[in-house]
Amino acid sequence: MSVRSTKRDPGLGLPRFSMATFRSLQGPELSRKMNRLIKSEHAVIGAYETAARERVNIAAQLSEWGESTDDEAISDLSDKLGVLMAEIGDQEDMYAQNLEDYRTILKQIRNTEGSVQPSRDNRLKIADEIQKLKYREPMSPKLETLEQELVRAEAQALVAEAQLTNITRAKIKEAFDIHLAATVERAEKQIILARHARRLLLFLDDTPVVPGDPRLAYKHELEARSVLEDAENDLRTTARESLGTATEEQDTDGTASEAKEGEEEGQQQEGGGQAGGRRGKKKARASGQAMAA
Amino acid sequence: MSVRSTKRDPGLGLPRFSMATFRSLQGPELSRKMNRLIKSEHAVIGAYETAARERVNIAAQLSEWGESTDDEAISDLSDKLGVLMAEIGDQEDMYAQNLEDYRTILKQIRNTEGSVQPSRDNRLKIADEIQKLKYREPMSPKLETLEQELVRAEAQALVAEAQLTNITRAKIKEAFDIHLAATVERAEKQIILARHARRLLLFLDDTPVVPGDPRLAYKHELEARSVLEDAENDLRTTARESLGTATEEQDTDGTASEAKEGEEEGQQQEGGGQAGGRRGKKKARASGQAMAA
Repeated sequence: MSVRSTKRDPGLGLPRFSMATFRSLQGPELSRKMNRLIKSEHAVIGAYETAARERVNIAAQLSEWGESTDDEAISDLSDKLGVLMAEIGDQEDMYAQNLEDYRTILKQIRNTEGSVQPSRDNRLKIADEIQKLKYREPMSPKLETLEQELVRAEAQALVAEAQLTNITRAKIKEAFDIHLAATVERAEKQIILARHARRLLLFLDDTPVVPGDPRLAYKHELEARSVLEDAENDLRTTARESLGTATEEQDTDGTASEAKEGEEEGQQQEGGGQAGGRRGKKKARASGQAMAA
Repeated sequence: MSVRSTKRDPGLGLPRFSMATFRSLQGPELSRKMNRLIKSEHAVIGAYETAARERVNIAAQLSEWGESTDDEAISDLSDKLGVLMAEIGDQEDMYAQNLEDYRTILKQIRNTEGSVQPSRDNRLKIADEIQKLKYREPMSPKLETLEQELVRAEAQALVAEAQLTNITRAKIKEAFDIHLAATVERAEKQIILARHARRLLLFLDDTPVVPGDPRLAYKHELEARSVLEDAENDLRTTARESLGTATEEQDTDGTASEAKEGEEEGQQQEGGGQAGGRRGKKKARASGQAMAA
């Protein structure tokens, strides 16, 4: 089970003379693959932002359509269904914001990779010069200077490689912690919203009527309203529970007060707490925006 | 709490002379709002398809990046993480397919609305003619014919309006049953995949090393592989459980055998079983595609 062999470097199919240009566009070789991944994530995030925006628009369209049917039950339920659908859309937007945070951390890996490249290149260049000089002028006094330079370059490269592995491992964990926590968070909240939304459907009597007979009067307006309240409360409870976890973790580095400001939103439930404070405000703003509308 | 007032009809801002064209583009007035909603859903579905496609590409890019790091642990874990990310992407694609099914059902409402329009128009037209004729020629013999026509038109309109309310209520319930079940299904499966993916991160030792010191050897290859197997089993179990519900419902209309073909996929868990058979094959094809790669 591997996804490796399914994709090839897009550069492989190009004629040789254009490779140099293609490469230079992509930055240092070492950071090229991560750079490509970061660009693809940009496209994913854009797609989720589009989906979120359209989902919120559709919620309004659903409500307007319901109103235009002159059917009291459809009108009330479509409006309330619209509220929950808009909130589902907002969750999609928050997911996109969290993916943006993940993407920012991937950039730290890419930047480290890019900055390590000159150290590697420099060491190779000096070693190469020594080889050439040994061949042309084995007794050259410049050889000793170059050997000293090589020792320094090797020391520098050793530090650079240690930095690279340290940053790469720490940041890939941090990035995917955020990414996966965001996936779980979106899923948990959308399950809450979708389950409450399905309760609304039960209030719609779809027994067929015969021509001329009136529909029974719609009596579920208060119940439908309480579905929205339940959904809002359940979302808040999830947010509080998640906040509890995030705060406990953050107490150890003294940033708990920052997390408190993000009370309305649900931070990821396990592991990714270190990012909670930073994203608190941004997400609190987005959350509950449909509910308040 | 309402989403109604937030959006206005895009036609309202246009100068009067272009309204006729704008309206004729949108089809019969009665179906215009639903038509707009159906078009917006098309954009949402497209966004999810993009996200799904890019997510699967990124999974391969992640694995290739990991291989290029020459770090055994990163290489193994990025490849396996890629498998789970690709499967999360496939779930996004199945979600888009389910939304397409929901959208198809909304079209049935729009089409019924469109076909009811002529009945309404006809009844109004005849009533209008009668009014005019009564004013101009109160004793015209044509009046009686028109009155008879009106009675027939009213009977037809009565049937049309009953069809409209019956179709609208039944289909809006069916459509959102599918939509919301798809939301829950995507969420449940992505939670399974994301939780297992987080287990992989625990196998990555991110203790910083000092320059020159080697990393401890990576020993989690077998454990990491079993994470993938666990994820696959959990997904299958969810699919079977959902299938159980869907089959029970489908036994009543004799289409259970069709549902069996969709064994690999997880049909919606509650309520939306009637659509399971139709979508079974399509989804079985998509599911597990990353796992098998």
